[in-house]
This record gives sequence, C-alpha cells and structure tokens, in this order.
Amino acid sequence: MLNGERIISKPLRWAMVGGGRLSQVGYKHRIGALRDNTAFQLTAGAFDIDAERGKDFGVNLGVDEERCYPDYQTMFAEEAKREDGIEVVSIATPNGTHYEICKAALEADLHVICEKPLFFTSEEGYEIKALAEKKGKIVGVTYGFSGNQMLLQMRAMIEQGKVGDIRVVDLQYTHGFCAADEGENISAAQKWRVDPAIAGPSFVLGDLSTHTYYMSQLIMPQMKIKELLCDRQSFVGSRAPLEDNAHVLMHYENGAVGTMWTSSINAGCMDGHRIRIVGSKASIEWWDSKPNELTYEVQGEPIQTLVRGMPYLDGACSADERLGALHSEGLSDAWANIYLKFAVAIDAKNREDQETLNNLVYPDIDAGIEGIRWIENCVRSADQGSVWVEFK
Amino acid sequence: MLNGERIISKPLRWAMVGGGRLSQVGYKHRIGALRDNTAFQLTAGAFDIDAERGKDFGVNLGVDEERCYPDYQTMFAEEAKREDGIEVVSIATPNGTHYEICKAALEADLHVICEKPLFFTSEEGYEIKALAEKKGKIVGVTYGFSGNQMLLQMRAMIEQGKVGDIRVVDLQYTHGFCAADEGENISAAQKWRVDPAIAGPSFVLGDLSTHTYYMSQLIMPQMKIKELLCDRQSFVGSRAPLEDNAHVLMHYENGAVGTMWTSSINAGCMDGHRIRIVGSKASIEWWDSKPNELTYEVQGEPIQTLVRGMPYLDGACSADERLGALHSEGLSDAWANIYLKFAVAIDAKNREDQETLNNLVYPDIDAGIEGIRWIENCVRSADQGSVWVEFK
Amino acid sequence: MLNGERIISKPLRWAMVGGGRLSQVGYKHRIGALRDNTAFQLTAGAFDIDAERGKDFGVNLGVDEERCYPDYQTMFAEEAKREDGIEVVSIATPNGTHYEICKAALEADLHVICEKPLFFTSEEGYEIKALAEKKGKIVGVTYGFSGNQMLLQMRAMIEQGKVGDIRVVDLQYTHGFCAADEGENISAAQKWRVDPAIAGPSFVLGDLSTHTYYMSQLIMPQMKIKELLCDRQSFVGSRAPLEDNAHVLMHYENGAVGTMWTSSINAGCMDGHRIRIVGSKASIEWWDSKPNELTYEVQGEPIQTLVRGMPYLDGACSADERLGALHSEGLSDAWANIYLKFAVAIDAKNREDQETLNNLVYPDIDAGIEGIRWIENCVRSADQGSVWVEFK
Amino acid sequence: MLNGERIISKPLRWAMVGGGRLSQVGYKHRIGALRDNTAFQLTAGAFDIDAERGKDFGVNLGVDEERCYPDYQTMFAEEAKREDGIEVVSIATPNGTHYEICKAALEADLHVICEKPLFFTSEEGYEIKALAEKKGKIVGVTYGFSGNQMLLQMRAMIEQGKVGDIRVVDLQYTHGFCAADEGENISAAQKWRVDPAIAGPSFVLGDLSTHTYYMSQLIMPQMKIKELLCDRQSFVGSRAPLEDNAHVLMHYENGAVGTMWTSSINAGCMDGHRIRIVGSKASIEWWDSKPNELTYEVQGEPIQTLVRGMPYLDGACSADERLGALHSEGLSDAWANIYLKFAVAIDAKNREDQETLNNLVYPDIDAGIEGIRWIENCVRSADQGSVWVEFK
Repeated sequence: MLNGERIISKPLRWAMVGGGRLSQVGYKHRIGALRDNTAFQLTAGAFDIDAERGKDFGVNLGVDEERCYPDYQTMFAEEAKREDGIEVVSIATPNGTHYEICKAALEADLHVICEKPLFFTSEEGYEIKALAEKKGKIVGVTYGFSGNQMLLQMRAMIEQGKVGDIRVVDLQYTHGFCAADEGENISAAQKWRVDPAIAGPSFVLGDLSTHTYYMSQLIMPQMKIKELLCDRQSFVGSRAPLEDNAHVLMHYENGAVGTMWTSSINAGCMDGHRIRIVGSKASIEWWDSKPNELTYEVQGEPIQTLVRGMPYLDGACSADERLGALHSEGLSDAWANIYLKFAVAIDAKNREDQETLNNLVYPDIDAGIEGIRWIENCVRSADQGSVWVEFK
Repeated sequence: MLNGERIISKPLRWAMVGGGRLSQVGYKHRIGALRDNTAFQLTAGAFDIDAERGKDFGVNLGVDEERCYPDYQTMFAEEAKREDGIEVVSIATPNGTHYEICKAALEADLHVICEKPLFFTSEEGYEIKALAEKKGKIVGVTYGFSGNQMLLQMRAMIEQGKVGDIRVVDLQYTHGFCAADEGENISAAQKWRVDPAIAGPSFVLGDLSTHTYYMSQLIMPQMKIKELLCDRQSFVGSRAPLEDNAHVLMHYENGAVGTMWTSSINAGCMDGHRIRIVGSKASIEWWDSKPNELTYEVQGEPIQTLVRGMPYLDGACSADERLGALHSEGLSDAWANIYLKFAVAIDAKNREDQETLNNLVYPDIDAGIEGIRWIENCVRSADQGSVWVEFK
Repeated sequence: MLNGERIISKPLRWAMVGGGRLSQVGYKHRIGALRDNTAFQLTAGAFDIDAERGKDFGVNLGVDEERCYPDYQTMFAEEAKREDGIEVVSIATPNGTHYEICKAALEADLHVICEKPLFFTSEEGYEIKALAEKKGKIVGVTYGFSGNQMLLQMRAMIEQGKVGDIRVVDLQYTHGFCAADEGENISAAQKWRVDPAIAGPSFVLGDLSTHTYYMSQLIMPQMKIKELLCDRQSFVGSRAPLEDNAHVLMHYENGAVGTMWTSSINAGCMDGHRIRIVGSKASIEWWDSKPNELTYEVQGEPIQTLVRGMPYLDGACSADERLGALHSEGLSDAWANIYLKFAVAIDAKNREDQETLNNLVYPDIDAGIEGIRWIENCVRSADQGSVWVEFK
Repeated sequence: MLNGERIISKPLRWAMVGGGRLSQVGYKHRIGALRDNTAFQLTAGAFDIDAERGKDFGVNLGVDEERCYPDYQTMFAEEAKREDGIEVVSIATPNGTHYEICKAALEADLHVICEKPLFFTSEEGYEIKALAEKKGKIVGVTYGFSGNQMLLQMRAMIEQGKVGDIRVVDLQYTHGFCAADEGENISAAQKWRVDPAIAGPSFVLGDLSTHTYYMSQLIMPQMKIKELLCDRQSFVGSRAPLEDNAHVLMHYENGAVGTMWTSSINAGCMDGHRIRIVGSKASIEWWDSKPNELTYEVQGEPIQTLVRGMPYLDGACSADERLGALHSEGLSDAWANIYLKFAVAIDAKNREDQETLNNLVYPDIDAGIEGIRWIENCVRSADQGSVWVEFK
C-alpha cells in the first residue's frame, strides 16, 4: 500500500512539452506525476505554442519563469546546459508532433513519457526504440486508465487460471461526445483529432481504442492476435477519411476470438469503456465507470463482485492501493500509479538495475509500438474493404 | 391496461404438440396461452413422444384423457371429427419437426403457433406461408421475449424520432450454460440442439439470436440489412459444425452498422441479453435482466430511466400493461402478451377483419421466415470464411 | 420446479368478492389463482358494488351469468344450495369490510383468502381464527410479494447460519405516488385508503409495511419484536390522522434492532421495497425491483449475487421455480406461488392432512393477525408521542 | 474547471501533527493538500509519537530532516523562530488530542485544519472558535467526502426548488469492518476508536455519521433539527459503552423528518454511505460508492441520472471539476477540493478579505462544532433510554 513515501532516492527533474492551460490531458499528467512530490518535480516546461501564454501558465504552476520556454527545442538546449537540468520530459502535444519531439528529447539525453497514440507508424516506433536503447533511456506511454490496479487483479486471476482458457475477449471504448455534427465552433482540441495530417491515420481507433487494447494486453500478456477485421465509418461526414466509429473482430493465436467497439458517436453513453474476458471456467469484467470493482462470474456459481482495497485481492493489485477500501479511487489515482512506475523505471534504468526493469509492469515503448501496430492493422483491414488481414 | 376480460368473443380451443413434462418451454406456452382463460382453452394435446407419459401429463393439466393423443397425426385426425374440435395448435417440438407438423396442421385447417427457429430453410417458410394464406390461417412464432411491452416503447420512440437517425445497432444474446464440455450425461434437450439433423444449420444463431434479431426488427421495422459478416466457433469441439459462439457485423441499407454477439459459452453471464440502438441524437437500451426498464440517453442531457407502468409511456406500450407500476412483470407476462395477440390475430382472421390484422404487431410467419433468413445468411457468410455476404 | 401439473386432485371452485373491473389488485388475485387451471377455477363472483357492472365483468371473465351475484350475501346463500357450489372465496374489497365478509364466508363453510391488512383489530383476528378452526377452514392472506421464492432462499440461508446471529433488520416499503396534494379528482381506490372508517387506523403502515413486515417474519421466523417506536406523519394534510410516511424502530427479543421506513410520499422512488438482514458474519439483501436476485455479503469476501433459477439455491427456493434461470419472474409468478400454497393448504385441510399443513409455509391467519398487531403497536406508539411501547 | 494553476498568490507553508507512516487518513491529508503544489507546501511535521519513526517518515516525504520534530510543542516553538516558519498545521491525531493541539496551534498563530470529530464537547468548540477569531485564524475540519462537487449540485438544486419542500432526510453511513469480535490483535487505529478516553463519547456516531451529518447540512443549509432520538448498541460487547451501531430519528423545524443509520457492523456492506433528500416534488440521492453520479427522481417522470463533468450541472458544481466527464473522480479529488478551499479561506483571512470568506462554502469551525453537537444530542438521547430530546 502506497502512502507517498519516496520509492526512488530523490524526485526526478521533470518538464512538459504541451499540456498547457486549455489542455485537459495536461492536467492529468501533472496530477499523475506530482501526486506525492517524491517521484517527480515540475522543473521546466514548453507548455504552449503561444509562448507568452505558456510562460504565464508555467509560472502559475510554480515553475521558475526562466524555465518556461517558448518551444521544446529551446528547452532541451537550455536545460542541457544546467547542472540541475531536467532529466525527463512528458509530451502532451497533438499526435503528429510526438515523433520529432520524442526523438529530440532522447537525443538530448532525456527520458521520455509520451501521449498515445505514440507515433504514426510502427517503423517510427522501432527507430525510437533503438534510439532509446542506445541512449539508455526509458520511453513511457501514458495509457492512463491502465494504472487502475484492478486491472492487475484481472491479470493475476487470469494468470492463476481462474477463468480457464480464454475464449472471447470483449472490448469497448465508446462515448457520444462527437455525436452531433461539427459546427464551425469545433474546439481546437477536437479539430486536430480529425485531421489526418495531425492525428494520423485514425480518429477513435487511435484516440480511444489504443487504451483498451493496451489494457487487454496488460491483463492477458500471453494473448497474441493472429488476424483481424476492421469495419469503420465516418457518421459525421466531415470527419472522413477518419472514422468516428469502428468495430473490429480479432482471431487470437490460441483460437480465442475478440471484438472491439470504439466510437465517439455512441450518443449519450457515459459508461462505454469496458473489458470482459470470457474463459472456459469463468468470466471477468471491468467497467471504467465503476473503476473500484471487478465482476467475476464462475459458471454455475453466484456472481462475485470484487472490491478495491480488500484483503482478498492479489498482492500485485494491493501494491498500488492508496486510499483503502470504502474510499473511491478514480482516474487521478490511476495516473499517479503509472507515473510512479515511470519514475521507478527511470531510476532503475539510471542505476542499470535490469532486474527491477524486468519485473516492472508499465506501458513502455513496446506498448506504444503495439498500439501503433493495432491502428495500422485496423486501418489496413478497413481500407481493403473490411476484410481479414494478418496481424503484422 | 389489461385485466383479463375477454378481448375475443370466446376462448379458442387450443392444443399442443410437444411441450411435455420435461419441457421448460412447454410451460411457457401454457403460461402464455392460459393467462386469463379468455383467449385460449387447453383442449387437447400430443405432448410427448412417449404416448403414455404424454397422456398422464395431459390429464394432470386437466385435459380429457381421450383428447391426450399419442401423436400429432392422430390428434389432427380425431379432432377434425369433433364438432368441438381444436382450432389452433402450438408446436413446441425440436426444430427439425416444425415444418412437417406445421404443414399437417394447416392442412387440417388449424391455426398454428410454432417455436423458433421456424424451419430449416426460408423456402420451407415461403411454402408454408403460401399454404397458410390459401387456408386462411395464422402462423405465429413464439419469440416470447418480444412480448415485453417496453420494446413497443422503444419502437414508438424510434418512430417518433427520439433517437434521431439510427447509426449503430448493438445486439447481444449470450449465456454461459454450455461453457463446460459436454459430458456423457448431456440432457436430451441439449443434445438435439447441437445435432444438425434435428437443430438445423446452427446452434446459438438459431436458438438465441433469432429472438434478438426479431426484437430488433420489432423496434425498428424500417431497418433492413444490406450485407453481413458472421464469424462462428465451436469452442466445445463436439458441437462442431454447430457453433456455440458467433459474432455478426451488419451493414444496413441506410448506412447504419450493427453487431450481434450470441453465445452459450459466455461463462457465468446472467445478463447477456440486450439491445442498444444508437441514433444521431440519443441512444435507447433494454436489458432482458432488467425487463421493466429502458435507458434513454440523449447526448448532453441527464440519463433517463423509463420505468414500466408509468403514465409517461406511449399508448402502444401501456396497452399491454397488466400489473401497474412498482409491480415487476417478467417473462410470463411477455408470453401472455404475445399469446393474446395470437388470439386476436386468429379471431380477426376467422372474421376476415383485415384492418385489425394490418394494425396488429406480433411475430407472424414473416417474422419466422425473417429469422430463418438471418440464420441462412449468417451461416453462408461463416462457411465462406467469415466474409461479407449480401443479405438475401 | 413447477410446470403446471396438478398438485391437488382437482381444481377448487373459487369465487371473488370485489376485485372488479377497475381493481388493480383484483387482477393479481386472478393471475395468481388461475395460473395453471389445476388449482382454482373461477366459478362465481360478487365482483362489484355496482351489480350490473359486476355481472358484465364476470361474464367477460368467463363466469356463468347466473353465478355473477349482486352481493356476497346472495352469493354465499345461492352457492350453498348447489352441489357444485363454491369452496373458497377471495376477498378483495376495502379493508373495512374484510371482517364481516370473512365471517360470513366461514359461516357459509367456505375457505377464505383475504386481502391485507386483514381486519382493524387483532381481537377480530382472534375471533375469526377461532371460527375458522371450528369450521375446519383455512384463512389465507394475500401478501403477494411474499410468494417470491428468493425469500425462501433467504429463510434457508438464515436458518443455516449463513449470516450468523441477526443484529440489524433493515426494512423499507416506500413509493412516491401520493407525493402530490390530493386534488378533487382523487381516485376512489385512493380515497378509501385514507378514510379511517374504511381503511382502519393507518394508511401506509397497513397498506405497504404489512407486506414487508410479513416478509421479514417469513425469512426469520424466530425473530420476535419486544418493543417498538413509531413516528408517523401526514405530509399531505388532508390525510390526517392517517399517515403517509412512518419510521419505526424495533428492538427484538434476541437483542437485534430493526427499522422500517414506509411511505407513499417518497417522491420519484421506484425501487423502495427492500429487506436487508445484517448478521454477525454476513448480510443478505433483497430488492423488489430486482426480484430475481439476492445480494449476499460476507464480511471480508467478494460480494455475491445469487440469481433465481440456479442449481446452487436451496431446495425450498427451487421448489417454487417455474421459468428457469435467465428467464425473469415477476409479481405474477409470486402471486401464483402463494395461491398454489393456498390450494395445497385447503386441500390438506379438507383431507385433514395435518402434516402437510405443518410443513407448509404460507401467509395464514396467524400472519394476518400478526400484521394487525404490527399496525396496532405502531399506531399506539405514534399516538402516545412516538415513544417506545412493548409489542403486544 | 480546475487545472492546477495557483489560486492564491503563493503556496502556504504547511505542517502536519500525526498522520504518520501507518495512518491511512494522514495520506489523504497529503493527497488533498499537495494536489497541485500551488496551495500548500509540506514544510514540517511532528508525524508520529515515535519521534525517530516520524523523522524517518518525514524525510521520506521530502521534509527537511531538521523540520521533522519529535512533538507538536517543539514544532510550534521552533517554527515560530523562523522567518520561513509554517503558516498552517493539520492535525491528524486521535480525537482526544485535538483540543489541546488545536489550542496550542492557534496560540502559536497558526491556521488549523483538524480531523473530525473536532473535540469532545461543544463548549471546547466555542472556546476554540473564540480563540481563532481573536487570533484571526481559520479552523477547517476535514470532512473529506464533502469535497465531492456533486454535493454542491444537490445544494444548488435544492436551493432552486427542484425537489420542492423537503419532507424526509434519509442518511446512512455504515460499513461492516468491525462486524467480527475484536481479538487480541486489534489494530492500534481501531483500539483507540473504542476507548472513550481517547475517542470521546461515541464510536460510529463520531467516526462515521459526523461526515454524513455535515454533508446533509452542506446540501440543505436551511434545515435545522428541532429534536432527535438516538438508539445505539454495542453489538461487540467489548466496545461498550461506545456504540458500533446507531439509528437516529430527527424532527426538523420545518416539519420534515429524518433518519440516520450509522454502523461498523453492517457485515459485508461496501456501499453504505448515502444521502437521499425527499421533497414534495422530487427526490435527489447520492451514494459514495458511485461518487460521480446523482439520481434525481421527479415523481411521475423518468428517473434522471446526472453525471459529473457534464455541462448541464450547476456552476457551483462545475467550478470544482478537474478531470472532465467520462473520467472518474474519487476521494482523493474530494480531499483536494476541500484543501483548496482551506487555502483560499486562509489566504482570504490573511488578506482580511471578508467577502471571499462569506461566499466560500467549506467545513469551517462552525461545521466542526455542529458535528460535536450532533454527537452530544445523540448520546444524550441514547443515554436517557433512546428518548426524544430537544436539539441543543
């Protein structure tokens, strides 16, 4: 159980690129990183494409004015000159800029934490992975929901055979916030998400389903997709060629099948993020809208609801517990959990402690690349007419 | 609101083929037909392939011993000789016998109510439809769940534009009662369901998803499938070639898309029967496990839960109300609703009251044929390698 | 598991007093009694204070016109003259008439099934009980909800020690249908319920909470109230002195405590009927709005949801099963269950089969008297200023 | 919507008394205070009665070793000597020490944030209130759950008349973690809670129900209790005279009635913290286990579920929003909300900005005193034999 005490010897000097005043996700990064002040310290930032606004914002967060930079290039250059320069940077900018910023950061000898989807192509991913290895740095990917420790409970139960052989994987990440036609006053944050030049080759597949796909891998790491079929639509026409709705069918190597429904036009839906794993003995299910619970259904037995914070949970789950049973944790706690693991990974990497790295479960660059592959395969299938394609 | 008073001038003389002592579904037919004693009267039966057991059973239900027949042929022949002979027969036998019994019944000038899936092929369906028309008889199909009046509420709301243009149809009928390997002591009822000679070309597609498919048509009659893709599996190998799990993707003519998940290996699942219709404005959802509720979700507004029995419901829904708000209705009430409509249809047919027939919404032979087509198209797609096929 | 086969040798000839065309509860009696046509046959009736309307209604239910009587006195007298005269009568009239009709029925050598609250005073109850014993007749009381077999599951689990020693009993039966001021067009059914001359000394305590109080006795027969305190209000002033809201605190003889909240002004509440029993090991809970489930919560273990129809349920529960798992039962099934037990009790009484009667769990006259005592004690406490009173 | 930017000119120098390594609640204070690093800075502490352990712990949190003090007296004395000395202290020690520490802190010219229940007697409360006023300092009370902004939504809706006149207040805070007999290895945290010398005159009334009572006042500030009746028990005998279960009936001055159930022996209960307000038009309900939702039930209309983060919510609610719709907030966010308000209050007090203080809704010393009064009145009633007592 966590209580805020330091887990690494001292907080890492941390900066952000993007995530400025109007960014919802930027705040999630800060909530995650700064939970206990014993893992990260916000030291510098290039928070905004509007340099003045970015500086004003950074100062309001408590960053020294001189370390609020107009752009990431300047930041990396200037910080590199300081003895107390930043050690790690988080990238919370539109998708199309991730690759270049990430590359620049690694070349500036920084560890990197980056928003998803990581890059546009898996080739970029492999290139950055090689660079990170060469540089001895970590690249973490902020699949924020995945920090919910109940997912580790699912992972443990599946590993322990409590669902039996996996047969059906039922994944969904949908909402309805883009159900209406986009008017002229579409927000900037929404606008770039449907511009292929900035968002990449997908909208909801990348923006939403990569989270859920990663979570499925987290809880059942042994399961590999063999082939898939993706059917995608742009119900709001102005979004074409990017989809606002997609259904994917998956065939896994072990004979299991899966589905993913991802959508931003599931009108009115406020609880559309969920994972169900069906095994030969039992099923296990998690809903993001009830993040403190798991449903465990053994065929022929009473339905079980497992509740966060309870002693019957697996050690891997309890290790990330903070508030105790009866006390709701939410997304801010999940982000705190993954950021703490980024810190542990960075610290271990710095100390060349490979054992710690081997045992640590967190969204690393492989998870980021896997998310890109997911999108690539879905798009390839969809663009060929929604046909089955081998998962490459 | 219904209160048991007669709606037709006198109860119809009714018989059953099948539905004997060990049949779960047989009791549902009787519960439905005999709810008020003002629509049907159980007059005769060939309840069992074991004639003695069938007679004993019939007598225990209050049928005259002499009218408990050893087989349907005898029953149709003997009853035809009586002035007070039966007028309508329900068929609750394994699938493979529906066609011949149905044909014999019509030829004996009886109205027919038949279990689903109606027949093996749509050709059989068209033939029987023609015969029924020639004979001036009704063929009703017992999609029992569809009698739940909340589905009529969905139909009314969709018709009134309350969800906007339909975009996504999300259908599911799954359970986990066949998750375990079939041992030697598999029940008779289960055994024939996975024997293609008796069950036809599908297991769960026919046994489960035809219900949900019909319900989707009931609530959105204007929506036609243009093409579909079906992926089916036999997770318990002994069931091959019949599937115990299937996923279907649908493209509707209006551009909407849909999915159906049907399964009998969804281990532990006790609430796996549901319908969600996503429109451009709002979504509407019904779960069989909460049959007295609808969820109506308008994007950007509080989620609404509509409750059975309340005055704000549509007249078409309230017309089938029996118990009043606060008082749970269940599947027995749904069966009573469809059987009452069968009675009204038969009575109207007898009186050549075409207007009543035109306005009556109930699962008729077209609904039965449509269910067969659904299976045929799913199987054709699956057997070709889970590819898109035009809906024929 | 029930399937409609006869349990008694032949159906009882049954009549109703009250329960006419506009009576919601009247239809529940008929649904319950006539479920299978093997327990009761509707033979006669004095359905309405408006004799013509009552006759028209009875004929519409299929009763012979000559056996649709203008009043119960005539019915009892005329039927007594027939060889095939009625054997049992159900009383579904306003409370204030129960005593005299019940007495007349017993004196006419009829078994009686009566609405709750049974009478105005427990003295009347003891008198009728003595009369019934003298006449060798049954008096059943239609606590309709109590027919839900999940309550028998609770009873079995409590008896088996699965909750430990009972500590807290948490009862509620509330709705909001009387939240608004009564205008001039208050329905007749509602009007008499708040007229002490017809309803007796209470409104919601009698109309609602007697159900829940009986259910609590059904599931934990060993628990006796030692003293209680009742606080009641008439939030809609015109209802005074009858209450539309009340809270009761109970002390049981074993040291347990309890609460009952009953109300008709719980605005908007559609799920306000529930029972929770807290023991030293575990709690068990039932909600009328989810009648097919129980929640079983063992301290320190995952929460269990037990589902109707499953093999793990107790035999006493499964004995009343009709539809099978996955198939929702509702209030009509509960009424069918209690009416079937009335039939079994009457048949056993007729056959002087005391063993059957001893083993049969159903709402008998003692349950009816206990409900009156509940009201009497609540009212006595409330009228003395909401003080603790010994339960007499 | 909050994003972590500073709301006061610079972070307050903050210390803790208690809340050490093994304290669950201590971490909640730190999570709340340190959410954004723009409101509070953890500067010093006397974290533990074991001075060495406290120092080790403080250093692990990032506090300078020299400012990790062996006791609060030393801390107040030493910090007073520094120019950069602490400005505010949080007290997270057992109840019996609150009064003396709080007094010492105010006398050392510190603002105070203190755990609930605040003190043993309301007299102590009035004395400290006078001292705080004299010193120009704030005393905040950590009713942590009350920081959930959905409660402000309830407050706004009630104020706007959306439930009508309040009639019934239904409060509950129960769990089952003390259902089992206390063995020898009872935890220290649990032990003092049932020792009157340390815990004061109550266990669950103080430990649990003061939260819920404050929340009820927060959402309906105009409602005053006129008289109440409390019935309390010690189901685990060793806890006597302190109760582990209590029921309270309340009469409000406006004629409304209320109930509170508080318990630590509600075996297995994981969702026992809730508030329902019943008005003449509608009811509104919040469950701590679903902290992102409100249920709003207008009699005769579909049930509404209001979801956190949505634009239709009141400005007072939205002002405390951090993560945005679809993203679960939990108890850590609620604590962040109240701590932020403490910071605003302290800053305003320091600036003598009375207008800000007048408009700020947060748990101040009056809320703390009101909690003590609640306990005093409940205990007085219970100790007189569970009788009605005037609320003093």
